Amino acid sequence: MVETQGPLSALVLITGANRGLGLEMVKQMVETQGPLTPVSVLFACCRDPGGPRAEVNLTFDLVLYCLLNSLDAADPKSIKQAAQQVASVVGKSGLNIIINNAAIAIRSPFFESTPEEMQNCFNINAIGPMFISLLRAAAKDSGTPGMSCRKAAVINISTIASSNGLANETYNKWRVLPYRVSKAAMNMMSVCASVELQKDEILCMMLHPGWVRTDLGGPEGELDTHESVEGMFRVMNSLTEKHCGALLNWKGETVPW
Amino acid sequence: MVETQGPLSALVLITGANRGLGLEMVKQMVETQGPLTPVSVLFACCRDPGGPRAEVNLTFDLVLYCLLNSLDAADPKSIKQAAQQVASVVGKSGLNIIINNAAIAIRSPFFESTPEEMQNCFNINAIGPMFISLLRAAAKDSGTPGMSCRKAAVINISTIASSNGLANETYNKWRVLPYRVSKAAMNMMSVCASVELQKDEILCMMLHPGWVRTDLGGPEGELDTHESVEGMFRVMNSLTEKHCGALLNWKGETVPW
Repeated sequence: MVETQGPLSALVLITGANRGLGLEMVKQMVETQGPLTPVSVLFACCRDPGGPRAEVNLTFDLVLYCLLNSLDAADPKSIKQAAQQVASVVGKSGLNIIINNAAIAIRSPFFESTPEEMQNCFNINAIGPMFISLLRAAAKDSGTPGMSCRKAAVINISTIASSNGLANETYNKWRVLPYRVSKAAMNMMSVCASVELQKDEILCMMLHPGWVRTDLGGPEGELDTHESVEGMFRVMNSLTEKHCGALLNWKGETVPW
Repeated sequence: MVETQGPLSALVLITGANRGLGLEMVKQMVETQGPLTPVSVLFACCRDPGGPRAEVNLTFDLVLYCLLNSLDAADPKSIKQAAQQVASVVGKSGLNIIINNAAIAIRSPFFESTPEEMQNCFNINAIGPMFISLLRAAAKDSGTPGMSCRKAAVINISTIASSNGLANETYNKWRVLPYRVSKAAMNMMSVCASVELQKDEILCMMLHPGWVRTDLGGPEGELDTHESVEGMFRVMNSLTEKHCGALLNWKGETVPW
């Protein structure tokens, strides 16, 4: 059981933490004095922590505990198991921030997308409900009014490609239909969750990280992971109750639905 | 093999045709001289044409053939089978209008929605791709420029509950999370499909039927099926290429994403 250091020392969980944006988030929380540090406990979750594509190699200056958890965001059983493990560590302190960053992108256009691809993409975005009691605990434990990432928040990493309004501009550039649909579905889940969570003073919103040079974004991306995460952490640090259900980019600008 | 009567006599397929809005659409196409008649062939599709909740009992004044097809919109095999049957009837004339009306609503809020419920709701909205060659055939066969429902169109019956922007107003009224998510996913599929289909001059857009007194809408709905379908047919009749990817209500007004 871990004693927190008050509301300014956050208990954080990140999915998809072994590479790309997720790994950069872990690094900036663990190694850099940034807007979201200090972090007292960081659960860095990924499907296969020991797998060949995991590249976690960190110093631990700013984090009391960094636990690499196995969590397959597409498997409800795995999510439940991880939630139980996390609960046994954090106890009544709960979790302040869940950053739902795990994603897969299947690169197929509409008329070549199989029902199975659609389902795989869809499953990955449903981790929220299993962790809700930990967020409620943190909100209750904080003793502060209003909403913030320091108190209790679910941050879902979305994408500008989830925007219906921008599809005419973006679809021919990124013909990743199942990915788009899964993120549009995730946006709607987040928006509904944000309404339900208001009474518990838990903030739920979505961030577009920019077009980042990762496995998913490809080498032509406009940002590196460092810039993207730095920006997203700055935005997260500035969030209040007025951002419930919002979709913002890494600069804090609203992305149209 | 059916001879069409030119582009003003449409070949139409409707899913979820045995009750509610779908049945009313069939009735207004078969029995009423409305904006979308005459129809030369109408494929009225539903999961279980002989089932206890089917209530089709029609006269056939305006339709040459009304074929009640078995099509389970949640089952890819069933969709494929239906597409083959339809193709064998219409031949090179193809299909002018697909009205994708089948839907299920699971009434559960976010934190009580199971992954299985989410998946069921999601599956039902993917019939488009299997019918695409029939729409292409109709577009090619029409010989007219531009886009219209008389030429080739996919009309997806969506809902105002798919609107992220209106969720704050509507979510506490209709806490149907899996339904909302499935329709948000369907919107994104439709928007992407509308971009892909432009080169074939096939129109793809979404209609919100209003809050209608059906099994799904409940007895408190604001419209009866007759008013809703009359409005939607009027809107469909007025569609052009500028409505590609649009989400309109039964009065022709834009619904915000």
